Amino acid sequence: MYERNIKLTIEYDGTNYHGWQRQNNAIAVQDVVSNAITKLTKEFVNLTGASRTDAGVHAKGQVANFKTNSKIPAEKFAFALNTILPEDIVIRKSEEQTDNFHSRFSSCGKKYEYIFYNHAMPSALNRKRAYHIFTTMDIENMQIAANYFLGTHDFEAFRASGCAAESTVRTINHSQVYKKEELIVFEVAGNSFLYNMVRIMAGTLYYVGVGKFSPHEIPLILQSKDRRRAGKTAPPFGLYLLQVFYKNCDEE
Amino acid sequence: MYERNIKLTIEYDGTNYHGWQRQNNAIAVQDVVSNAITKLTKEFVNLTGASRTDAGVHAKGQVANFKTNSKIPAEKFAFALNTILPEDIVIRKSEEQTDNFHSRFSSCGKKYEYIFYNHAMPSALNRKRAYHIFTTMDIENMQIAANYFLGTHDFEAFRASGCAAESTVRTINHSQVYKKEELIVFEVAGNSFLYNMVRIMAGTLYYVGVGKFSPHEIPLILQSKDRRRAGKTAPPFGLYLLQVFYKNCDEE
Repeated sequence: MYERNIKLTIEYDGTNYHGWQRQNNAIAVQDVVSNAITKLTKEFVNLTGASRTDAGVHAKGQVANFKTNSKIPAEKFAFALNTILPEDIVIRKSEEQTDNFHSRFSSCGKKYEYIFYNHAMPSALNRKRAYHIFTTMDIENMQIAANYFLGTHDFEAFRASGCAAESTVRTINHSQVYKKEELIVFEVAGNSFLYNMVRIMAGTLYYVGVGKFSPHEIPLILQSKDRRRAGKTAPPFGLYLLQVFYKNCDEE
Repeated sequence: MYERNIKLTIEYDGTNYHGWQRQNNAIAVQDVVSNAITKLTKEFVNLTGASRTDAGVHAKGQVANFKTNSKIPAEKFAFALNTILPEDIVIRKSEEQTDNFHSRFSSCGKKYEYIFYNHAMPSALNRKRAYHIFTTMDIENMQIAANYFLGTHDFEAFRASGCAAESTVRTINHSQVYKKEELIVFEVAGNSFLYNMVRIMAGTLYYVGVGKFSPHEIPLILQSKDRRRAGKTAPPFGLYLLQVFYKNCDEE
């Protein structure tokens, strides 16, 4: 029996990984972090992540937890693991939790951002970090569209076919579009998300931004419950998991 | 004889290159762009860059030029070369110039930025893009120090030992420090720069930021003309060549 429960907050550049969780023997972030913990504690650990980010998706605030009997002070895990981990995975914080804390099941919400690089020419420095859209995007229309995501809706039209969730009703409490120099950022928070939901929302906002969809089509797309009515699934490298919320959905 | 002179504005992520110019048979940005031009025009070209950025240094606005007899319209070179170039090198603009335009000798100034990532923990997403300083930096003191760089001074104390420049007098007309979330940016423009000058200025501002130097030591360091009095040479991956100025030093 393990006596301690350690929560990790993790930042990673998803470029070189096949997502959080291992698939088809490719290298996953979960494996790399698990192996670092084993190297440190000499224990085999079961590291559970709050979000199974896809290949290429980045995280500024992924949360994971593991049980251990190690005597290392909780806050020291971050520093010790960072000396073992490659530079593209960083433990930003390590904390002691009560035994019943579970990074996924205890979570009451998540916040993501999707970043577009909006310029006539591509950007060498933003490749693999943002989705390049060369047509000028209409941010006001994108914000009008993003507002329609707010509240509780059936997001059936915004999930990938591989999604196994029984209910497709989700609540979005933050949905904002803003410009940051040549970047256009879509920031969204909600209680939970269906498979590929944020990337389909982003792909739909992209269509609104370039005038392919009217922003007022969003309610119709939601009502249709038809994936084909929504926009494309925006590529993974524009997506960032920003934060996972717990308890009263206070910020971490 | 070549009849046309094409100016390129180039963005690159310096991470995977041994700088602009080839050294010791390592891959340089200049070679990759030259080869792309040759592939496109079937001509062997002499591509001259405005700044010989070091290994790991990035560029948002490097400028280079080459002579050609190709019939490709000037503004089309950018698009055509980008289909050949790797994703970490992008031609942002291509323009026709008169025969006497030379990217280096016609230049009357350059603008750089040096980016620090100031946080207790390192950042996976900012690795190779910013210099991680874990101690909180005093931006106000850094700005007081940066102001002392303004004007015409002998920058002997701010050049690397390998620098062959005859005169070490340079004029700085912009020297600003600002915060952008967890980043601290030092932006500097001047008529020309000695070898490693911006990185030594950045390393000196780092010492000021963490309290190792008083900002008011800058005039004394300048007067000393002694490289050992200035701060360390900050690492290359925090440095970005932003812009090269021509003619009346108008913005490009």
